Amino acid sequence: MRQVNVGVLGFGTVGTGVVRILLENKTILRARVGVDLNLKYVADIDTQTNRGIALEPGVLVNDAFRVVNDPDVDIVVEMIGGEGIAKELILKAIENGKHVVTANKALIAGHGNTIARAAAEKGVDFGYEASVGGCMPVIKSVRESLVGNRIHAMIGILNGTCNYILTRITEAGSSFSEALAEAQAEGFAEADPTLDVEGFDTAHKLAILNALAYGMEINLDDIYVEGISKIDPVDIAFAREFGYKVKLLAIGKNNGGSVEARVHPTMIPFADPLSSVSGSLNAVSITADAVSRVMLYGRGAGMMPTGSAVVSDIVDIARNLITGTTGRIPIFSYQPEAIRKIPILPVDEIHTHYYFRFAALDRPGVLSKISGILGENGISIRSVHQKGRKSEGTVPIVMLTHRAREADVKKALGEITLLDIVSDQPVLIRIEDENGGD
Amino acid sequence: MRQVNVGVLGFGTVGTGVVRILLENKTILRARVGVDLNLKYVADIDTQTNRGIALEPGVLVNDAFRVVNDPDVDIVVEMIGGEGIAKELILKAIENGKHVVTANKALIAGHGNTIARAAAEKGVDFGYEASVGGCMPVIKSVRESLVGNRIHAMIGILNGTCNYILTRITEAGSSFSEALAEAQAEGFAEADPTLDVEGFDTAHKLAILNALAYGMEINLDDIYVEGISKIDPVDIAFAREFGYKVKLLAIGKNNGGSVEARVHPTMIPFADPLSSVSGSLNAVSITADAVSRVMLYGRGAGMMPTGSAVVSDIVDIARNLITGTTGRIPIFSYQPEAIRKIPILPVDEIHTHYYFRFAALDRPGVLSKISGILGENGISIRSVHQKGRKSEGTVPIVMLTHRAREADVKKALGEITLLDIVSDQPVLIRIEDENGGD
Repeated sequence: MRQVNVGVLGFGTVGTGVVRILLENKTILRARVGVDLNLKYVADIDTQTNRGIALEPGVLVNDAFRVVNDPDVDIVVEMIGGEGIAKELILKAIENGKHVVTANKALIAGHGNTIARAAAEKGVDFGYEASVGGCMPVIKSVRESLVGNRIHAMIGILNGTCNYILTRITEAGSSFSEALAEAQAEGFAEADPTLDVEGFDTAHKLAILNALAYGMEINLDDIYVEGISKIDPVDIAFAREFGYKVKLLAIGKNNGGSVEARVHPTMIPFADPLSSVSGSLNAVSITADAVSRVMLYGRGAGMMPTGSAVVSDIVDIARNLITGTTGRIPIFSYQPEAIRKIPILPVDEIHTHYYFRFAALDRPGVLSKISGILGENGISIRSVHQKGRKSEGTVPIVMLTHRAREADVKKALGEITLLDIVSDQPVLIRIEDENGGD
Repeated sequence: MRQVNVGVLGFGTVGTGVVRILLENKTILRARVGVDLNLKYVADIDTQTNRGIALEPGVLVNDAFRVVNDPDVDIVVEMIGGEGIAKELILKAIENGKHVVTANKALIAGHGNTIARAAAEKGVDFGYEASVGGCMPVIKSVRESLVGNRIHAMIGILNGTCNYILTRITEAGSSFSEALAEAQAEGFAEADPTLDVEGFDTAHKLAILNALAYGMEINLDDIYVEGISKIDPVDIAFAREFGYKVKLLAIGKNNGGSVEARVHPTMIPFADPLSSVSGSLNAVSITADAVSRVMLYGRGAGMMPTGSAVVSDIVDIARNLITGTTGRIPIFSYQPEAIRKIPILPVDEIHTHYYFRFAALDRPGVLSKISGILGENGISIRSVHQKGRKSEGTVPIVMLTHRAREADVKKALGEITLLDIVSDQPVLIRIEDENGGD
């Protein structure tokens, strides 16, 4: 074999990154891989825009189906995104016996089980390293480097938009909407940021990681998702006083018979290396029996970092082609027959630490009533802070709890809300702190 | 293929970790790999010590050659260490057509070129993920995840003993010898710590990483190595005042026609995530054209973390065996014919930032003389700090420089040492600070 023919579908941001790496680093890729990765096609409906890249004549085409149907194409790289035409093209490519690489987390989180089955039946490889964590080798680490480990927990900062916004609120005291506008101006947030700021993008990634780590069928629907759009800077400021930063975390834990899968703003201690991951950077911390803890850190998005992950998949498949192999590693880390439906623990059943903020009337006995209700519901208070900052006749009472059950917490907060001494809904932020006591 | 037969040579710390993972996580390994990784032999001259592991009868043997000569053994795992019998056994195993896994960085740094040639000739795989960074997937990241990248620089904290000692000096104000004694008591340092504290272990790892990243023959001899045994706590305290921590860093940079390869105590800014890697933890930061920067973080040594990396190699090879493949990835990342002898830049030729401390007599004109000599040698001073802390009639003068050439620095310090206003040798610590100016 002298060369491997690659067809890229979608000449947008990440597609352009992949094309640039294949062309600009052609020599170093050949020195490492031993064959040429030949860019045979780039397909996009927009063939006019100048992307600053000189393609050979005939490479740029406007019909993606021409690529997936060309017998000379070995690897199809889907960079279109979304669950419509991208899915159709991927399934067609697989049907035609082509290996597929994608960064499409929404598609995998929604239809990964179907795609994996189709790929396994056809005996083709399916790479998706770029779907989680951009250039951080998260998928490879879970599927390969940690293969001998029983994974206990994964905690990730997996959305650069949210991390940028939370960093700005923390460091510059911006409001959510100011920080969002900045993120949009800097190119770190889309015009419609819903998918990112409401946590759905992070949930897609967590659905994939949980499947890989725990051998479960991909389950997006049961993940608990809470975004950052309701974050009040005052809580980020209080968090800092207690030694915590607020991050949007993807939390995937293995409880034995069930799995925790949740995405929400979370307080983490300064001492945790995740707390210093700032701006648009991503990181993931994996706790497992043999390694204790390993952490990856890098750019989770962007043309070249995501392109780098896509190219690593292209090379993995090229190496299989060169050595006449496919299916070396099961697509979702476990042998298909070993994959089970593992239930996700309802969020009401989780046990964790909590931060509460109540807007309480400045009257005697308020604290006693609130703590009484918490106590009746089995919630043990770690510390109470009555802040002198009056606002519209109320004072904030901030509490940190020991480990408590979420259902009990919600019941207690419901009862407290009914008290005539508390105005507004209480604020609840979960805390991820190994040293937070039991 | 129903099972892959593994023979472990050496039942010490890491060998025990490998055996424990293979036995304790047998079920999860089978679910992921699809076949059994059968522990056929563990060889050690000490067959009496109880390591708390129940081996099947006949598994524990005292003759390692019996393992490498047994036709049933598919993968030989060398966990003996050192360059004597370990090398002989590895070469014999390769000669017998067996795939080999090792964690032996001294052996690879010293004889890697020979071993790789033998393995390539015999068409067997050679895994050594555990030789650098313990459970951090450094080798896999460089060889596979970053395959599309031109790597510019690697900066690593690759020795847990040194990092533990420097952390204790920084946090507890211990002297080097106190911190070393603590490290020994905690099991983080050997009885003879020379290999670790003098930087040689780190140099072995850097020799391997440079080869993988830059496509050069392994070259241990030309790496500049300076350990931490002469570190004075006073310089760590001063560093903190300037916003720096002192770490023993492995620095491998690609300058185009030459490569920088050096191991020495280094000041790095607090803002650099490497600065917060404390205790016995390891981390490596890789800068490359597509990813910008990616960082790995985890335990660089120890029974189970290192065992985890060894098992990931065993599985990689098992997957090759199952799918009938070998040589999928070139042993040292580049195709053998693409590997060149790239010269390592002599340390005198590097340009970096410096920290100096002079013990100066408390007389007028001292600063002017010192800075005059620096200026004559083309060294530009970023800041000067005259500390009021007299000691035996001298005051410390601390200086930070802009980027300077090491040969000029040494010449200037030599001239300054000859001044009768300076007692003792000046202290020189290199600074790795992207924002340190030109």
